Amino acid sequence: MEPFEGGESPVSQSESENLLIIADSEASADLYYRTRFLVTVTVIYLEIDGRKIFLLNDLEYGRGRSEARVDEIVSTTPYEEALRAAKEPARLTSVLDLYLKEKGIKQLTVPLSFPFGHAERLREKGYKLRLKDDPIFPSRTIKTAEEIHAIEETQRHAEAATDLAVSILKRSEIRGDWLFYEGRELTSEKLRLEIHKFLLERECQASNTIVAGGDQGADPHHRGSGPLPAHKTIILDIFPRSIRTRYWGDMTRTVVRGKASAAVKKLYKDVLDAQELAFSLIKDGAEGEKVHSEVAKLFKLRGNANEDVGIKKSGYIHSTGHGLGLDIHEWPKIGRVETQIKTGQVITVEPGLYYPGVGAVRLEDVVVVTETGCRNLNRYPKELEV
Amino acid sequence: MEPFEGGESPVSQSESENLLIIADSEASADLYYRTRFLVTVTVIYLEIDGRKIFLLNDLEYGRGRSEARVDEIVSTTPYEEALRAAKEPARLTSVLDLYLKEKGIKQLTVPLSFPFGHAERLREKGYKLRLKDDPIFPSRTIKTAEEIHAIEETQRHAEAATDLAVSILKRSEIRGDWLFYEGRELTSEKLRLEIHKFLLERECQASNTIVAGGDQGADPHHRGSGPLPAHKTIILDIFPRSIRTRYWGDMTRTVVRGKASAAVKKLYKDVLDAQELAFSLIKDGAEGEKVHSEVAKLFKLRGNANEDVGIKKSGYIHSTGHGLGLDIHEWPKIGRVETQIKTGQVITVEPGLYYPGVGAVRLEDVVVVTETGCRNLNRYPKELEV
Repeated sequence: MEPFEGGESPVSQSESENLLIIADSEASADLYYRTRFLVTVTVIYLEIDGRKIFLLNDLEYGRGRSEARVDEIVSTTPYEEALRAAKEPARLTSVLDLYLKEKGIKQLTVPLSFPFGHAERLREKGYKLRLKDDPIFPSRTIKTAEEIHAIEETQRHAEAATDLAVSILKRSEIRGDWLFYEGRELTSEKLRLEIHKFLLERECQASNTIVAGGDQGADPHHRGSGPLPAHKTIILDIFPRSIRTRYWGDMTRTVVRGKASAAVKKLYKDVLDAQELAFSLIKDGAEGEKVHSEVAKLFKLRGNANEDVGIKKSGYIHSTGHGLGLDIHEWPKIGRVETQIKTGQVITVEPGLYYPGVGAVRLEDVVVVTETGCRNLNRYPKELEV
Repeated sequence: MEPFEGGESPVSQSESENLLIIADSEASADLYYRTRFLVTVTVIYLEIDGRKIFLLNDLEYGRGRSEARVDEIVSTTPYEEALRAAKEPARLTSVLDLYLKEKGIKQLTVPLSFPFGHAERLREKGYKLRLKDDPIFPSRTIKTAEEIHAIEETQRHAEAATDLAVSILKRSEIRGDWLFYEGRELTSEKLRLEIHKFLLERECQASNTIVAGGDQGADPHHRGSGPLPAHKTIILDIFPRSIRTRYWGDMTRTVVRGKASAAVKKLYKDVLDAQELAFSLIKDGAEGEKVHSEVAKLFKLRGNANEDVGIKKSGYIHSTGHGLGLDIHEWPKIGRVETQIKTGQVITVEPGLYYPGVGAVRLEDVVVVTETGCRNLNRYPKELEV
């Protein structure tokens, strides 16, 4: 998926405080990372003196006991009953308060994303809260062999889905300016549906797959809609998540069904070269901002300016990459923020050029950082005209 | 989907303050409700003197201008450039600070879910933050005709998917204690995959569909895995989301492929009667807690006790229903919290009984509350043995 702008740079910190997370692990990759327990409702998670503790209600308790990789599971039922007996609402923060009183704990560390409402209620009850900068679990940014394997597995499915999409484009018929498949106009929606069904069969889920033709591709967050054009760029940005492992894959290819213009061919060549340049710079200890600025510099040298086209921005309008794992966008961010790239990080490398009226090109692979360089997890070819 | 436990009761408030949301609208249904702009990265949204304002970066700006139903879209670029020129990180809260200084605003209202990290940074910059209780947009709990239509549409797809699942179960072959389909063991995973593919074809996405046989069904949040049993309860809880409208559907049927035991037949009858009882009590002005307690009372009268079975809870172990809309779990909650049911609310009605070793039965329909009662959006029959 194309990189995101904004966001904060990470500050590494110790993991030794009494940590509190109130979240569901479907939304919070941190919570899932730390417990490997998938829960779709909001629960209380604590780390006290290094012990991992879940406070779970009746609905989650049994499953938590058999699935969660934690040290202790505490039932919230006695606390809820005590609160109800006292005619108080059985709020999460009230349940937590009763539990922490037993433990004599008054100071907690919470993540930046911790809900302000809960924070205020805990403060009112006399708790001292300390914020912990992201990433709250720095170890999450360095992938284990098992994690790399999981990402690689999902990436294989993303490549197979890309191949399916390309094969449909190849088999589509060019009638004037538009593509037809099986007798009908080929639309972004149709191609996206085929990609999603294909991925589901492989135990992968994808929801916002980008199939963006022509000027739609120049808006990097446009998913694409309507008929797909012949002789114009089509961006295929496929980022499935494995239902089984929960690790994401992410890749982008840009193709033209028919004949690409000379201008588009030049854009493609520049993006390809920029990606190769980024690959050559990425290794343990490299500065992320430098990788990004070198890509931007190459684009400028080749005459690709950043300009406003009406209300749209054109040129190189996003960052160069992002970490990938249990979140589609993780640390590190390879863009206009300081960050030191480290061995074991898994990052996307996805330069792109966007010129409404001309074309939009993005190429994205995923690499694992090594001591001396990086290993590309993608094998799928890069061909413009199909 | 089965109701959630925990959570807070809503407090209705005026919507007139200067509101601030920092979120992505894929995760925040409130933000999507208010702007109808789907954005997968974190953005700044403000309501100042009743005017809806987005602060969007280059990647979202163009699309925001054409899609978002707001009064004003402000580009973050000048603020980011000013921060970079001053060698300060271009954080969201710093960008917001520059914008609010221009407007002379120092006081903001934020939702309970507002990230604590942003709250602290804003406080450090001298802002006064006021929490707003959920629901931050009370109007969201009362559905318009258009919203009801969207939910009904998704519900039709959920029913069609249920029918597909039941037809596969009917066509499956009973060999001893297990089901076989097309020559192979029929598993929860296989049936779920068929349901998800079917829904995708209908522009609906589902991810955690419950297909839980035997004792797995007695754990209401167990999605189900492995071979499906003959002669035992199978819970089919299907809650798709329309990709187009983003409104959810939600329904549950419980079936037995083969012969149900007398004990299971009794559970089924009790749940069916409890659901009918709930339907008869729901109308404008009804007290949600009363609906729930009457269901619980009926279950007890029929001899269905709440007991611990080892580490598992048994009996009626969740609430009776929840609001449905742009979130799968919305207001009001029909359970052990005070809430007045109102005309135009759309709620699930889903009593269930769970007894490991015996069976698990849940039946769930969705109703629209009216002045005098409620209208059931479900038509799909309730038959135990298939």
